[in-house]
Amino acid sequence: MERISATYYIETPFSPESAAAVLAGEQSSGTFVAVPGETEELKNRFAARVDSVIYLGTVSEPAIPGAVSASEQYHRARVTVSWSVENFGYNLPVLISTLQGNLYEIRQFTGLKLLDIELPDSYADHYKGPEFGIAGCRELTSVQERPLIGTIIKPSIGLTPEQTADLVKTLAEAGIDFVKDDELMGSTANSPFDKRVDAVMNVINRHADKTGKKVMYAFNISGEIDEMLRRYEKVVNSGGTCAMVSLNSVGMSATKKICDQRALAIHGHRNGWGMMTRHPLLGIEFPAYQKLWRLAGVDQIHVNGIQNKFWESDDSVVQSIEACLKPMFGGYSVLPVVSSGQWGGQAFETYRRTKTVDLLYMAGGGILAHPMGPSAGVTALQQAWKAAVDGLSLDEAATTYPEFGKSVEKFGGK
Amino acid sequence: MERISATYYIETPFSPESAAAVLAGEQSSGTFVAVPGETEELKNRFAARVDSVIYLGTVSEPAIPGAVSASEQYHRARVTVSWSVENFGYNLPVLISTLQGNLYEIRQFTGLKLLDIELPDSYADHYKGPEFGIAGCRELTSVQERPLIGTIIKPSIGLTPEQTADLVKTLAEAGIDFVKDDELMGSTANSPFDKRVDAVMNVINRHADKTGKKVMYAFNISGEIDEMLRRYEKVVNSGGTCAMVSLNSVGMSATKKICDQRALAIHGHRNGWGMMTRHPLLGIEFPAYQKLWRLAGVDQIHVNGIQNKFWESDDSVVQSIEACLKPMFGGYSVLPVVSSGQWGGQAFETYRRTKTVDLLYMAGGGILAHPMGPSAGVTALQQAWKAAVDGLSLDEAATTYPEFGKSVEKFGGK
Repeated sequence: MERISATYYIETPFSPESAAAVLAGEQSSGTFVAVPGETEELKNRFAARVDSVIYLGTVSEPAIPGAVSASEQYHRARVTVSWSVENFGYNLPVLISTLQGNLYEIRQFTGLKLLDIELPDSYADHYKGPEFGIAGCRELTSVQERPLIGTIIKPSIGLTPEQTADLVKTLAEAGIDFVKDDELMGSTANSPFDKRVDAVMNVINRHADKTGKKVMYAFNISGEIDEMLRRYEKVVNSGGTCAMVSLNSVGMSATKKICDQRALAIHGHRNGWGMMTRHPLLGIEFPAYQKLWRLAGVDQIHVNGIQNKFWESDDSVVQSIEACLKPMFGGYSVLPVVSSGQWGGQAFETYRRTKTVDLLYMAGGGILAHPMGPSAGVTALQQAWKAAVDGLSLDEAATTYPEFGKSVEKFGGK
Repeated sequence: MERISATYYIETPFSPESAAAVLAGEQSSGTFVAVPGETEELKNRFAARVDSVIYLGTVSEPAIPGAVSASEQYHRARVTVSWSVENFGYNLPVLISTLQGNLYEIRQFTGLKLLDIELPDSYADHYKGPEFGIAGCRELTSVQERPLIGTIIKPSIGLTPEQTADLVKTLAEAGIDFVKDDELMGSTANSPFDKRVDAVMNVINRHADKTGKKVMYAFNISGEIDEMLRRYEKVVNSGGTCAMVSLNSVGMSATKKICDQRALAIHGHRNGWGMMTRHPLLGIEFPAYQKLWRLAGVDQIHVNGIQNKFWESDDSVVQSIEACLKPMFGGYSVLPVVSSGQWGGQAFETYRRTKTVDLLYMAGGGILAHPMGPSAGVTALQQAWKAAVDGLSLDEAATTYPEFGKSVEKFGGK
């Protein structure tokens, strides 16, 4: 019988083996005392199994509070646990409740982080995965052999549909590939959703008619399910190619329903992610997280960016990009979305470390606050990526390309 | 204009005032540099406002990593931030993205926890809240003036529909009020959902016909949205009164859609909650969390239990029960679900600290592993609560009531 396995980074005052056994019991057939009906046959079929325990060292202070009792030693280990697919069938919420449910409550742990999951091949038969992925998003935007260059409408909130459309017009004429609503922008008092779609798509469609290039705009459809479906239809009927969903705020079941429509590329925004991952010994790591959303069918997912404005290290961002680019079931392609404080200067380090151009590379202020205007901001980002791939240094690029040079003057000192 | 306010517990190497201002900027109109279009008028209307900052002390080590730079002092404070309702309209996912989105990523913080939220009265016009709540669940189960006594089917996973129904029959005859699927149990290879509903409801309906009392069974319908709606209908058509949703795994948008059907009491399971709250300076506190789910319309929500098997302190559990019992918009009643390692012995402390019987008091192993059998397990719980309300001590109750006395022998030594 096929099994699903999960690898955790744990910390415990007990032996890692015994703590892992508690986790396996709590997350399958067990409870705090033996109960009638928990037969050997039942346990053999449905109990979770501890497949491996790799000891990683001992510390003297617990990573998070709530230990069963004070101790002088807390052991860290990497443990792999597996379940039969018979426990779940094909049900993502129940899978999530098993992989990351009550186990964070267990007192035998003073730290627990889900690192990665492995899913059996039958999941690829059941879940179609992303409809567009990297190749599909390239096709929709007519961009090959370089990152898609994108931006976020800023100010995040407050612009009218007409102001938003004016900005999109400027950006489209400057050659932008992708524009998105901010995650704070749903349907505000002065920018109702439908009016924004009408104004923005009018600009995008006219630009496409003229140039043959359709800018991808990720309208933030996040909301209740019926409203999301209605807004999705509105985008489709207006000639749009993309919708954005705030994955954690909307949740798995409704996001899956949206992805199942398969007419728009789905831009997966991970806001709220910091809560789930910022502590090194609590929550989830991105390699596990992105797999669940690829199963749901998300085409683009946020990975933060090199030298970002947030707390995350470059190593972590690189790991996230690599996780997205690694095929799942031989495919399930998802486009990593690089953003947060990006302005082009980070293209060099991003390319050096990942050697990929399969990115949606986004800059908000980095484009819109360019000293020569948003149009020069787009040009500067394209120049930065060309230079990075050509092997130029940042300083060489700044001398070679005037628009990028101005970016360095404005943003390079930080 | 009405405002929504949120109170956070923060830690920062900067002045709390300046860190709060960064949060307010990031979560409304700002980005990392000033951009064209961020006018004073726009800021006045849409910018988040820091309403208060209460300094709480200084520590020498950061609570979580990722500070903008090393420091010798980290200041803690309680800050309240507010937004105009014009920013959101009535959209729970966008509200969540604003209250608990990218702000956890901000490097100016070395700790950030959402403590509570205040919503304006117009939200009560837009959201109907729980359809059943405490009074409705009491009516459905014919229980007044004492806690509803419930249990979880254990082993969590592995029993057949017939085995489950047999257990429900025993429990119903013993006078149980409520039974639930475990959150790990959706539709397994040997317990398909529909067959389980048929088998269980057959027992419950026959018992109701005979006695006039219908046991409430929370079938775990968690899954994709169409499957959940289909399973919901199956429960309704079979005469059931309740469905369970794993709130964090299913997510807000799909849970709201389920609650909107308003034919079944919705049992909100919070598995995964530990990840969001276990660290004292990262995530959310329960008073904020439960308000969002009451808005969605959840009728019952888990609060853990006194002297539980998990990491949570009694103080925190008491705070959660009190949060649920506090009216929201003068109503929006939600039934707190007490569970985790409960066996009746905790009734005394639970009643002493909360002075309420408006609880769904659940014991899994505490009922099913009772030395005289599950029937005596139910009786023992009823005895424990009667004794607690009557002012007896645990020892007095153990002497007075033989079934409860046996519980104390088996579970009281732990």
